[in-house]
Amino acid sequence: MAAPSALQPVFAHLKAQAENYRKELFDLLTIASISAKPQHAPDVRKAAEWTRDRVQAAGLKAELVETKGHPAVIAEGPQKSGRPTLLLYGHFDVQPEGELNLWTSGPFVPQVRDGAVVARGSADDKGQMLCGLFAAEAWCKAGGGLPINFKCLLEGEEEVGSPNLTPLVKEHAKRLACDYILIHDTAKYSADQPAITTATKGLVYMEIILNGPGKDLHSGSFGGQIANPATELARLLATFHDEKGRITIPGFYDDVAPLSAAEKARMAKLPADDAEFLKEVGSPAIWGEAGFSTVERRWARPTFEVNGIYGGYMGPGSSTIVPSRAGAKVSMRLVANQKAEFIERAFEETVRQRCPRTVRLEVKSHARCDPYMANLESAGIRASLEAVQMGFGKTPVLIREGGSLPILPMFKQVLGADSLMLGYCLPSCNAHSPNEFFHLSDFEAGMRSTAALIGLLATV
Amino acid sequence: MAAPSALQPVFAHLKAQAENYRKELFDLLTIASISAKPQHAPDVRKAAEWTRDRVQAAGLKAELVETKGHPAVIAEGPQKSGRPTLLLYGHFDVQPEGELNLWTSGPFVPQVRDGAVVARGSADDKGQMLCGLFAAEAWCKAGGGLPINFKCLLEGEEEVGSPNLTPLVKEHAKRLACDYILIHDTAKYSADQPAITTATKGLVYMEIILNGPGKDLHSGSFGGQIANPATELARLLATFHDEKGRITIPGFYDDVAPLSAAEKARMAKLPADDAEFLKEVGSPAIWGEAGFSTVERRWARPTFEVNGIYGGYMGPGSSTIVPSRAGAKVSMRLVANQKAEFIERAFEETVRQRCPRTVRLEVKSHARCDPYMANLESAGIRASLEAVQMGFGKTPVLIREGGSLPILPMFKQVLGADSLMLGYCLPSCNAHSPNEFFHLSDFEAGMRSTAALIGLLATV
Repeated sequence: MAAPSALQPVFAHLKAQAENYRKELFDLLTIASISAKPQHAPDVRKAAEWTRDRVQAAGLKAELVETKGHPAVIAEGPQKSGRPTLLLYGHFDVQPEGELNLWTSGPFVPQVRDGAVVARGSADDKGQMLCGLFAAEAWCKAGGGLPINFKCLLEGEEEVGSPNLTPLVKEHAKRLACDYILIHDTAKYSADQPAITTATKGLVYMEIILNGPGKDLHSGSFGGQIANPATELARLLATFHDEKGRITIPGFYDDVAPLSAAEKARMAKLPADDAEFLKEVGSPAIWGEAGFSTVERRWARPTFEVNGIYGGYMGPGSSTIVPSRAGAKVSMRLVANQKAEFIERAFEETVRQRCPRTVRLEVKSHARCDPYMANLESAGIRASLEAVQMGFGKTPVLIREGGSLPILPMFKQVLGADSLMLGYCLPSCNAHSPNEFFHLSDFEAGMRSTAALIGLLATV
Repeated sequence: MAAPSALQPVFAHLKAQAENYRKELFDLLTIASISAKPQHAPDVRKAAEWTRDRVQAAGLKAELVETKGHPAVIAEGPQKSGRPTLLLYGHFDVQPEGELNLWTSGPFVPQVRDGAVVARGSADDKGQMLCGLFAAEAWCKAGGGLPINFKCLLEGEEEVGSPNLTPLVKEHAKRLACDYILIHDTAKYSADQPAITTATKGLVYMEIILNGPGKDLHSGSFGGQIANPATELARLLATFHDEKGRITIPGFYDDVAPLSAAEKARMAKLPADDAEFLKEVGSPAIWGEAGFSTVERRWARPTFEVNGIYGGYMGPGSSTIVPSRAGAKVSMRLVANQKAEFIERAFEETVRQRCPRTVRLEVKSHARCDPYMANLESAGIRASLEAVQMGFGKTPVLIREGGSLPILPMFKQVLGADSLMLGYCLPSCNAHSPNEFFHLSDFEAGMRSTAALIGLLATV
């Protein structure tokens, strides 16, 4: 553990610079770096240049790296041999603004309201990315230099699925080599409960299409004589859960890492209320795999969802047809140590086996990504727990994430490094919605946490 | 049976007038009386006036009767007390033309090709309606007058579901009183096999909607914790057929009239080939209720079809959501003596019972109509068999229809009369498609058949 004494001037610097850092955050937030909209490509580049310059000013060697899409920024601090290496990953691109009339102020005109800066990207991820950068700067300017090897990989395509990140990381694998990737793109557990995220789910996203007659047919003249693709689709989809809500694909659970007693106990202790949860989502009842709590189902159990279903006449009123085809988009979320490739194959084999021969089956694969789980016993996780405690003044909880982050297993595979996910914003920060916000107190506690992490890692 | 001698001058008249009748059919076919398109309302009226005038000229007293929509024509011949009464039902409105570039000639520019007149309405129903009218005229002009009471009810709203027919028939019930309704709006069994249609199916058309969360949710953050409406919809729909293809709604089959041995034998004798049928519809295999042939399933067994299914993300690619709702349009075709009202109630009760409480269920009713079956032993059916034999020179077969015709149970209920369905066009006449056609030889054989029926009914 870093002596708190070494941290004191770093924390003091952060406190002294709070006003300036806030202004600089506002600066970056005025750039409408929406990666999804081609007309905003110059803005994404502008944000990349702003970031490169700011990283350089902080005391690192920064470079703007071109990709097939929007550029990225790669940077390195001075080499500290014998010390661990931390790679800060973040992104300076943002989601589209969405419905403008739902914003209470311009999405790219940052405003402070109720102690939070409101703007697109304030939390996701400009504000949180800057927590990492300003923490590093504090060490450079006030801590006698960075006590570890510190690198940055900041991209401009996260909100469009990071299509060029894997080749970029592969190409610069040596330069990006590290012990841990530091990611500030997650969230706290709740307003007063900081958290460290330790796992994300994998994803297998498929589409099945059942083809029957060559065209829609009159249901009076042809009904009951040939298989109805919509009926067969329903019968097929109905087989994927048993009465206990378990997924019936053979071998599906074979590789699932069971919850450790310790993690089970930690999840049970989290403030979570099914009635509150139902009120929030609007469903009439809880549903899920028997034998697990809602939190366990969300974080630690694989799921199977129908994301969309279609076929035949879907307009208003009625049309008496036997549909020529019907289809469904289905996806499975995976947990450690399931393999997306195996699950995709198992799903397809099961569908092909169960689909009746009275229709013709098409199977399409849309997306595939492995789950990720950090080693909870690593020095990095131990240091993260302590660092967030120092930054927020409250012991963080270890949580997981129900969503998928393909970059985590990619980092693990290409760089061999685990990710430390320290999220500082609220889970309800409207990350992809109007009125995205980031509390300034969290911005500051976040900078302190990352600064503490840098110091703590220097001593492991 | 009418002495063939009495028919001879009538048949001779039809033969002599063949060229003129064809020209008059062409005349009516040039009127674009599309009832579905408001801008064609004047054309529907023009067709009504043409029809009224032509009925009048044939020797009947004809009147144009206004409705809340397009006008109808009601007509009566001279009263023949002690003789049966035949009410010719037909319609002078037509389907929209559909895709114009698929027509080989203008839909309202009748042309003769391969012995058939090609035009919208040639078969459905202008050409067939005129078979009835010209047959009656032949009796008036050449047969010494109509030998029975002959009436007409010709409407202009059949192709939009006859929304004003029931009130019209109720209002004019006395004037329309009859022993049989004569309908030329069906088809032969095949090109060389004339037919008489004796039954139509009933219909119950419903929509069920399963509501889950208040909005679409992230499938990673919320999947596996609340019921997925699309999954539950699939599980629900999967329960409506058992392994033998039988419908599982309690009481569903209670009122089904079993097929008589005679009818079963007649159906078995019909030229019907499953392999040909599959080639025509493009499905890979036959499917249906165990223990029945394809023809029996089509005509004599009730069915349950999913006409449409929808929910969640239905666009290209993928979207990782738990849908907030999912729905299906389902319809049941009923046979004698099922009651649509009972089946609708039984369906709704079953759905409510089977739908899990983890979603909120909505049930909507879109359409309801009873099945219809003629008394196969009636004098009218016997006369029809003989009449078509005379007109076509080939013994007709008794067939049923898989579709629904709400007007038949309505006529039965309001007028107490059975319908005689003598269809003269081909089943493949493109009735609602481009290049609708009606063979001129069938037009002429049809006129002879109806003329013979009029003569035969005079003697029962």
